Amino acid sequence: MTTTELQVATTTAISKRTSTTMKALVYHGPGKRAWEDKPRPAIQSPSDAIVRVTTSTICGTDLHILKGDLPAVTDGRILGHEGIGVVEQVGTGVSEFHVGDRVIISCVTACLKCDFCKRGMYSHCRSGGWILGYTIDGTQAEFVRIPQADGSLYHFPAGGDEESLVMLSDILPTGFECGVLNGQVKPGDTVAIVGAGPIGLAVLLTAQFYSPAAIFMIDLDDKRLAVAKKFGATTLVNSTDGKAAEHVMELTGGVGVDVAIEAVGLPATFAICQAIVAAGGRIANVGVHGKPVELHMEKLWDRNISLTTRLVDTVTTPMLLKVVNSGKLQPSKLVTHRFAMNDIMKAYDTFANAAKEGALKVVLTNPAPR
Amino acid sequence: MTTTELQVATTTAISKRTSTTMKALVYHGPGKRAWEDKPRPAIQSPSDAIVRVTTSTICGTDLHILKGDLPAVTDGRILGHEGIGVVEQVGTGVSEFHVGDRVIISCVTACLKCDFCKRGMYSHCRSGGWILGYTIDGTQAEFVRIPQADGSLYHFPAGGDEESLVMLSDILPTGFECGVLNGQVKPGDTVAIVGAGPIGLAVLLTAQFYSPAAIFMIDLDDKRLAVAKKFGATTLVNSTDGKAAEHVMELTGGVGVDVAIEAVGLPATFAICQAIVAAGGRIANVGVHGKPVELHMEKLWDRNISLTTRLVDTVTTPMLLKVVNSGKLQPSKLVTHRFAMNDIMKAYDTFANAAKEGALKVVLTNPAPR
Amino acid sequence: MTTTELQVATTTAISKRTSTTMKALVYHGPGKRAWEDKPRPAIQSPSDAIVRVTTSTICGTDLHILKGDLPAVTDGRILGHEGIGVVEQVGTGVSEFHVGDRVIISCVTACLKCDFCKRGMYSHCRSGGWILGYTIDGTQAEFVRIPQADGSLYHFPAGGDEESLVMLSDILPTGFECGVLNGQVKPGDTVAIVGAGPIGLAVLLTAQFYSPAAIFMIDLDDKRLAVAKKFGATTLVNSTDGKAAEHVMELTGGVGVDVAIEAVGLPATFAICQAIVAAGGRIANVGVHGKPVELHMEKLWDRNISLTTRLVDTVTTPMLLKVVNSGKLQPSKLVTHRFAMNDIMKAYDTFANAAKEGALKVVLTNPAPR
Amino acid sequence: MTTTELQVATTTAISKRTSTTMKALVYHGPGKRAWEDKPRPAIQSPSDAIVRVTTSTICGTDLHILKGDLPAVTDGRILGHEGIGVVEQVGTGVSEFHVGDRVIISCVTACLKCDFCKRGMYSHCRSGGWILGYTIDGTQAEFVRIPQADGSLYHFPAGGDEESLVMLSDILPTGFECGVLNGQVKPGDTVAIVGAGPIGLAVLLTAQFYSPAAIFMIDLDDKRLAVAKKFGATTLVNSTDGKAAEHVMELTGGVGVDVAIEAVGLPATFAICQAIVAAGGRIANVGVHGKPVELHMEKLWDRNISLTTRLVDTVTTPMLLKVVNSGKLQPSKLVTHRFAMNDIMKAYDTFANAAKEGALKVVLTNPAPR
Repeated sequence: MTTTELQVATTTAISKRTSTTMKALVYHGPGKRAWEDKPRPAIQSPSDAIVRVTTSTICGTDLHILKGDLPAVTDGRILGHEGIGVVEQVGTGVSEFHVGDRVIISCVTACLKCDFCKRGMYSHCRSGGWILGYTIDGTQAEFVRIPQADGSLYHFPAGGDEESLVMLSDILPTGFECGVLNGQVKPGDTVAIVGAGPIGLAVLLTAQFYSPAAIFMIDLDDKRLAVAKKFGATTLVNSTDGKAAEHVMELTGGVGVDVAIEAVGLPATFAICQAIVAAGGRIANVGVHGKPVELHMEKLWDRNISLTTRLVDTVTTPMLLKVVNSGKLQPSKLVTHRFAMNDIMKAYDTFANAAKEGALKVVLTNPAPR
Repeated sequence: MTTTELQVATTTAISKRTSTTMKALVYHGPGKRAWEDKPRPAIQSPSDAIVRVTTSTICGTDLHILKGDLPAVTDGRILGHEGIGVVEQVGTGVSEFHVGDRVIISCVTACLKCDFCKRGMYSHCRSGGWILGYTIDGTQAEFVRIPQADGSLYHFPAGGDEESLVMLSDILPTGFECGVLNGQVKPGDTVAIVGAGPIGLAVLLTAQFYSPAAIFMIDLDDKRLAVAKKFGATTLVNSTDGKAAEHVMELTGGVGVDVAIEAVGLPATFAICQAIVAAGGRIANVGVHGKPVELHMEKLWDRNISLTTRLVDTVTTPMLLKVVNSGKLQPSKLVTHRFAMNDIMKAYDTFANAAKEGALKVVLTNPAPR
Repeated sequence: MTTTELQVATTTAISKRTSTTMKALVYHGPGKRAWEDKPRPAIQSPSDAIVRVTTSTICGTDLHILKGDLPAVTDGRILGHEGIGVVEQVGTGVSEFHVGDRVIISCVTACLKCDFCKRGMYSHCRSGGWILGYTIDGTQAEFVRIPQADGSLYHFPAGGDEESLVMLSDILPTGFECGVLNGQVKPGDTVAIVGAGPIGLAVLLTAQFYSPAAIFMIDLDDKRLAVAKKFGATTLVNSTDGKAAEHVMELTGGVGVDVAIEAVGLPATFAICQAIVAAGGRIANVGVHGKPVELHMEKLWDRNISLTTRLVDTVTTPMLLKVVNSGKLQPSKLVTHRFAMNDIMKAYDTFANAAKEGALKVVLTNPAPR
Repeated sequence: MTTTELQVATTTAISKRTSTTMKALVYHGPGKRAWEDKPRPAIQSPSDAIVRVTTSTICGTDLHILKGDLPAVTDGRILGHEGIGVVEQVGTGVSEFHVGDRVIISCVTACLKCDFCKRGMYSHCRSGGWILGYTIDGTQAEFVRIPQADGSLYHFPAGGDEESLVMLSDILPTGFECGVLNGQVKPGDTVAIVGAGPIGLAVLLTAQFYSPAAIFMIDLDDKRLAVAKKFGATTLVNSTDGKAAEHVMELTGGVGVDVAIEAVGLPATFAICQAIVAAGGRIANVGVHGKPVELHMEKLWDRNISLTTRLVDTVTTPMLLKVVNSGKLQPSKLVTHRFAMNDIMKAYDTFANAAKEGALKVVLTNPAPR
């Protein structure tokens, strides 16, 4: 960048837009959301980019926000932390992205410069982490401001599919990093995934990168288990009878599993993981927990196990992109419903009734720019 | 080995002994122990060796047995799982040791052949693990039978010191494997060790193999903390006020420690570890737990931490031997009291009053053979 | 094992056999081999087992021996280091296998007790390593003596397929350990395999355990390349024009490959690997080399690469067994020709003309016992 | 940062300086250098910082440049890639450093944003890597422009010592990353370092972070070997007789060393490493090579060794800082001579005659600002 360029604080897309407002999904306190007009975002810092959103989706966390479970989210906040889009404007400090670039928006904002980012823990970035659609406005809108754009955006690959690649914003790296990598899934392993919701299924899809011999899928819902079967689970365990752990132990000849992955976030599902992990095995937690759990150290202290927690860092996005590009993974399998962004109120209704609707991921698309 | 040799099931030391009895420390139910006559052990399987014990020591676990906490230990059992000695007799299947060899006896019996042994998890050996002085007779005696001798004995190095090397039977590999290796101590790390008893001090000594920048030692007893200081701890925290976690957080500027090592085995000490582990850090459990603990997953789920448990495998004994031989580690530092084996009843009294006596490890020596 | 059992030095199959001879493929100096009568092997050491061979195969190394390239092989040696069979007899020190057990014979003999075995380097076992069909008699016979049986045999799984599982004796662990594990193949990686012979194809099959995005296969022979395509290679490079490296660099946009695996053993093929490895990449050598190679340190010193060598340790056999059992790998794909063991002279002729015959692995089967 | 701030492209130190020139050590083609006036550097890009140099040093590479070995260095270039200083000015994109901050200047420029930086391979940064005093002006001056300041500077710790910490610019991370980490030095290992120059000594100092049992130091110069002894080498081998490898093999009982570290960059020293590496060992190259070497694959193919190359990435600077701060490492040990920056012409003379002068690192200091 030359000194001349420095004088221009920001670079704007050629086609100047007259409109200064946009539509967005706005949170108005517990239980209240609206699809309404908001000012278009503007560059606030040299590391910012403004992205026109083409595709977004809804996450289970968005429902938690709407219930009021995350008080850090305040009235007026635009929700959404997943998306695909086109760069509209970049700050002077942005070097890796240019106006017109198609991009994948990561759910995690990474400055790349702080001690946590340098250690690959983007989730704990001193100035970022998960802030999008949480403490700053998010992607369920026509436009979004992305701080630390160089660390938070990824180039959309030529020939890529938006429905597939929007799964790289959050759900796939979450399942892969927190579940599969932390669980150290290896060829020949026996893996159990507790919870066959979207995130459990993302674990299931990415666990297969490492060729485990068996994948047990545990859930209360036979419909979800049937999906898991199609996605590669080798054994299904319906846990309605409260005896999931006993079933798994029986199925493994009393040995248990090499890797138990918790993808729900409740004491009861965590308890299953403890009860089925084999000596020398790993428990990898993916679920968001709201309460303490009882850890049976009196049984586990001499079992040579590891238990891990992690907030997705999205450091594996480049790797996941390569795998998706190679055709070895079709994340669009997770998409069950599609809506225009304008119909996002309906989309939320569908997603909120996921079990009844058979919904996994619900994709939202904005029309081409006006 | 030739077929001729096979016909001789066992090889015996040249100097035939007329005596068929020996003295041993025998458990007779909760609270009862005696130094009494027992038959000398004999080879029972081709993989056995009979070892004349020259040096042994007492472990905290022996006290637990005496309290009746480990019901698997039955009346008549000879205690002790640590020792140095001389091979008296070997079974036909023993290839690595010969009559007359000086040996270190590992607390863990390893067949080396089962799936767990092949994975380096000797502690879970299908036919071994910790059995010595637990489900079979142990080392606090004049002689001991060592099953799976090739996997359970180590050659005593020329010029070695028995007091130092008897610490390789259990306490040093335990501290090193369960605490330091599982805690992944790295150069520059901040480490906290909760519990400055013998095992916590073994963690302290072996953590320094990896040059951490700071080692916090946490205990209720200032005398033990003073020992820790001499052994290399950089900061001492007396936890009597119930505010150890607050102190550590203050001392680390609110960051916490990279590695928190639990070397006690109680819910309260485990709670300290949870409260002080930094984001991205590791909790390594060394203590033996008798009850469940409360795990604050509501705080830890997004902190990128790992928590590990392990029963010592003693797979690092060869590495530890090299370090001790090099002079970089003087395990005899841990020895505070010395007794003739004949005085083992007194030795137990001293060890049982460790705090009052200022006892860490109590070494027992048998006289030269009659 | 009780002392009574000890008195019986060896255990023999119930059906006593009157015959004391067997047929075997015997090496008689460079270029000379015969299918002839030999005495049946007998137990020589407590750790031995005698195995009746049901299936065997021929390795490229056997051809090297026949050329006289391995002078350690002496006149009269029975060749073969791969096989499946049934245990006929076990020494008193064998604990994991019993008469009548179906077993996979590993090409590597492992005592499990020496320092190398304890480190997982069975290939360098102090009393074993590769000795079968090399310095002791091998598996291309009706019976074979297996020293260190507990470390050198694996249980044949129920429902297993002999043709598939005989590939676990050598070729699959060799490709997997020396190529894939040493090459640290990761999801999304670009891998190049130089040499599409049986061993290169074994690398190809096992590399897919880790979901690389692209696998380049490089060979002089279009027929072998076509097989590689069927086995999962994504790009074929015929190196006849001497420009394989240039082609790969072009195909990778000048970047090169993450992992370059040498599966031939010649300076020229090694040179290709050096020329195509990307900065930060790995060169994993699988080929057997007879001469020094030129290493371009003037180009590589600042490229952050690693180069590894390894003799197969067969430590991954349990893992490979699990993957084969799960159906994720069909090693029998590698079998192109089948012969009765009696026709082994013909089988050798076919295998020695592999290119012309389109031969990969040639399987030999003994008839059911007389 | 606000939009107002954006309008000010750069922030300048309060005390405006009238002078626009400075003194610098300038390369004028092979064999020619001068301490002369140059224009003071100015911010060219938002990620730049201008640093007033307080301490610098001379690297062996600077001598290579002066010999004309690195033709990429052109007439007029200011040399030097090591330094400590004070931030004078920062570009608008710099967020981690402020005017007045004391900083350590890394020899490697890292954008932190490119694929290589994200993988921790700063040395291969798409817009950085080693450029300082090479393709852009360096630190042997009164002021220096540091591109990608957030990735290329480190905060100087309170109470730090400039002489010690200037060793973190290059020599310590080079020895540690290329030698110790790549060599995977472990407690109890036997390590050999070929070359006892400054870089070999940096390997020696940092290898001790991992408590190896023995460190052999190999060099032609007894004076340097004597220094190595003081720095912790356990065995000295003078290689003048051309038999260093034989000596090491004898001293290790024919086994060889676990880790052989090449810190010279010549075929002969590389040959020593090949000859002494034990089965299962690692060769880690640190030296800069100008020619190919002969690699004895005919001997090494079955030895389970790894060989690594690396250009220092300086990713371990934060870890090294923690170790230095803890007092466990005194890098100033490496400093043998001290000069005012004004006397840099003499300092070069001394350093160029290192053997005769007994010079290791030569420190240069600028006076306090005018």
